Amino acid sequence: MLEDLKQEVYEANMQLPKLDLVTFTWGNVSGIDREKGLFVIKPSGVDYDQLKPSDMVVVNLKGEVVEGDMNPSSDTPTHTVLYNAFPNIGGIVHTHSPWAVSFAAAKMDIPAMNTTHADTFFTGVPAADALTKEEIEEDYEGNTGKTIVKTFKERGLDYEATPAALVSQHGPFAWGPTPDKAVYNAKVLEVVAGEDYHTMQLTRANSELPQYLLDKHYYRKHGKNAYYGQNNAKSQEHAARETE
Amino acid sequence: MLEDLKQEVYEANMQLPKLDLVTFTWGNVSGIDREKGLFVIKPSGVDYDQLKPSDMVVVNLKGEVVEGDMNPSSDTPTHTVLYNAFPNIGGIVHTHSPWAVSFAAAKMDIPAMNTTHADTFFTGVPAADALTKEEIEEDYEGNTGKTIVKTFKERGLDYEATPAALVSQHGPFAWGPTPDKAVYNAKVLEVVAGEDYHTMQLTRANSELPQYLLDKHYYRKHGKNAYYGQNNAKSQEHAARETE
Amino acid sequence: MLEDLKQEVYEANMQLPKLDLVTFTWGNVSGIDREKGLFVIKPSGVDYDQLKPSDMVVVNLKGEVVEGDMNPSSDTPTHTVLYNAFPNIGGIVHTHSPWAVSFAAAKMDIPAMNTTHADTFFTGVPAADALTKEEIEEDYEGNTGKTIVKTFKERGLDYEATPAALVSQHGPFAWGPTPDKAVYNAKVLEVVAGEDYHTMQLTRANSELPQYLLDKHYYRKHGKNAYYGQNNAKSQEHAARETE
Amino acid sequence: MLEDLKQEVYEANMQLPKLDLVTFTWGNVSGIDREKGLFVIKPSGVDYDQLKPSDMVVVNLKGEVVEGDMNPSSDTPTHTVLYNAFPNIGGIVHTHSPWAVSFAAAKMDIPAMNTTHADTFFTGVPAADALTKEEIEEDYEGNTGKTIVKTFKERGLDYEATPAALVSQHGPFAWGPTPDKAVYNAKVLEVVAGEDYHTMQLTRANSELPQYLLDKHYYRKHGKNAYYGQNNAKSQEHAARETE
Repeated sequence: MLEDLKQEVYEANMQLPKLDLVTFTWGNVSGIDREKGLFVIKPSGVDYDQLKPSDMVVVNLKGEVVEGDMNPSSDTPTHTVLYNAFPNIGGIVHTHSPWAVSFAAAKMDIPAMNTTHADTFFTGVPAADALTKEEIEEDYEGNTGKTIVKTFKERGLDYEATPAALVSQHGPFAWGPTPDKAVYNAKVLEVVAGEDYHTMQLTRANSELPQYLLDKHYYRKHGKNAYYGQNNAKSQEHAARETE
Repeated sequence: MLEDLKQEVYEANMQLPKLDLVTFTWGNVSGIDREKGLFVIKPSGVDYDQLKPSDMVVVNLKGEVVEGDMNPSSDTPTHTVLYNAFPNIGGIVHTHSPWAVSFAAAKMDIPAMNTTHADTFFTGVPAADALTKEEIEEDYEGNTGKTIVKTFKERGLDYEATPAALVSQHGPFAWGPTPDKAVYNAKVLEVVAGEDYHTMQLTRANSELPQYLLDKHYYRKHGKNAYYGQNNAKSQEHAARETE
Repeated sequence: MLEDLKQEVYEANMQLPKLDLVTFTWGNVSGIDREKGLFVIKPSGVDYDQLKPSDMVVVNLKGEVVEGDMNPSSDTPTHTVLYNAFPNIGGIVHTHSPWAVSFAAAKMDIPAMNTTHADTFFTGVPAADALTKEEIEEDYEGNTGKTIVKTFKERGLDYEATPAALVSQHGPFAWGPTPDKAVYNAKVLEVVAGEDYHTMQLTRANSELPQYLLDKHYYRKHGKNAYYGQNNAKSQEHAARETE
Repeated sequence: MLEDLKQEVYEANMQLPKLDLVTFTWGNVSGIDREKGLFVIKPSGVDYDQLKPSDMVVVNLKGEVVEGDMNPSSDTPTHTVLYNAFPNIGGIVHTHSPWAVSFAAAKMDIPAMNTTHADTFFTGVPAADALTKEEIEEDYEGNTGKTIVKTFKERGLDYEATPAALVSQHGPFAWGPTPDKAVYNAKVLEVVAGEDYHTMQLTRANSELPQYLLDKHYYRKHGKNAYYGQNNAKSQEHAARETE
């Protein structure tokens, strides 16, 4: 059942230790088959060097296990909420990567301070509100997803253009059109969090990017006028035009 | 004599360089056989790449060497005090891991600022009082253990729920039900120490976790209602319930 | 066409991940054949572990692709401007190395604070002005090169003695007589950026080097009286003389 | 000529990249044969992965090359001054390790703030005065050694108990009874420099160790009553006594 997706989700999970995004088992990736309404997720608490594609657990959009011998990640309800709220995402990743966690603990956004950020995230990455005592006791992992969704709604953010959030006091969630892209976004988030920290210590002045620079960097990599990489019709034409 | 325990303690010691917790020989792990009242500890000053299981030294609960050709770790008296004072621990580790040392030198607790911390430690990890001149000259290593024990008593801390301490000006000790779990706890301590440092530089405001979030994270991994990982009866049931 | 140069530029590009200067594909190196007026550059968005010498793209000094199946780096117009403005450079490298990016985002120069810096850079490395909204929208990558050139002109800097610049909000460009030397200079820049950050946090006092120490370190490695390394006539003579 | 010493100095040099103490060729180790009055040092500017034992250069105590096809390290005059001034040292190492350089650029001592420091250095490690314009122009590398010697004299420091110094604006020199021990001391210096930096950012209060703790840690590893490691008569006796 969903063997290709299991393989894809397995490989995305295995990227986490390679990219220095996890210590021990502290991270999980899932990927969804939108037609079937089923997603595949890492089992809970299994060491990365023992993980196999067949260990992946299949879950439906109510968060119920449909196939798998092992327990799914304890963060499964968070993934469920995000897949239901953000219909265009194909993969989700949660890590405890240390720079992002440092900002999450400070309840601070990761601001857009450089073009490395702007290449991937169209705005600062928001720190979603910490959960209340009631939200934690009632449905902790589910409400973790809901605080992210609420933050995007309240701030009018586009979840496709800003594909990540911090949960205050906890850590980062990132997503994307595929599990692999979600992991890429999680790595970018960790890199720019470290850079922002150092920029903020160097100067307390406002170092946030102006919107026109965010526009330029984001749109040269994304959308119909993108010209970065090998797969955009505009790319080759652009290289010449720019210096005319 | 205690060959299985020697192997276990040897393997736990060998985790220290793999987890970037030691430079040179600056760390040691011990493990205890509670029935026999004997513990096994790394010899003093031996390089990790030359260490063998048979080098492990057997010591009794008075701190006397019972078997072994080599001198035990110079920190053996500290281990002895902790095994006597904390009857439910099965392993102890001491390192000079740099983030934990940085807090120890500042005589500051490692506060509970994020859920990575709360997953393992139920409270902040205390910085035990620095030893006085008299305590150092009288019985340095023994009193190093005693200042930890005294700090846990004075603050009413549960050594099983907060399985680590800093010794001010010196560095971290961690423990657990087994030598392997003690090493795990030492690594978590090092990771959260680095995160806390950065969170504290980002904001001087109170970033400590509320008790209800500590409760949630600690108890979803520990105790009878735990649902993280593969070995808890509650785990599978939970995943579904949370999203009902 | 330019097979030797392609090989040289390929090898210089492959140094970037080895020297921890890039994450994913975030960097590019080019090298120029001054007689032919053509330069060779990494294709856009290709993974380093899939890169081959034959993937390199040949570009003329108008920024037009002359040979190559792939799109050249999206930063090609910046390289074009620099090759035209700085006639003695043979190679250029752009990275998003994190310490240099942290300074770029703060719009701060990387000051000359230690002799590691002075061995390679004769002055502080300038943060070129951020581009205006108009400059970004008109010709982003071309104007990125122009702001570097303008900054060197305005400050009276010698591009051969200070072979690097930051582009504010973006990141570092470095150059040199060859692609390999350009990469060397980019690594030195990253190392001293990290050191300067820590020096600046330790003391807000002026820690910049005096000119006479910059002179000494720069000129013992560069120019006709250099005596560092194996290729300077002065070297052996010097070692004895200094202690006479 | 001095083949054993060349091998020993070669191996000590090769430890520098393994211990993350050098970037490129920025470091050198020497070792001395006191009976012959000759020392052996790394050649200038040679890559570590191309270095061979036979490349080592033999120099006398006037700083003159006695044997060797290559130029000796450009820091040879500094080594010469230190060997002449400190008669009991057998090896010297110079690196540009980044934490030590950060303190050197700030012209700040590396204070004794934790017992990792006290295990190796009996006092804070001094930042020797920066050279004057005249000292730099007259005999740069020789005066680099002399400022270290002068600082030890003025502060009444024991070069055997505090086997390292920073040269302000430049970087660390460390030494010891053998080249291997000198490298060990250089690594300890780098580790404690990083820890001290973080401790100093955590608290501006005085975090320096009291003398009685320095005494305890230094003397449990050094001198006739040492009991750390396997080679001290006192070691085994001690382990038992401490808990009596």
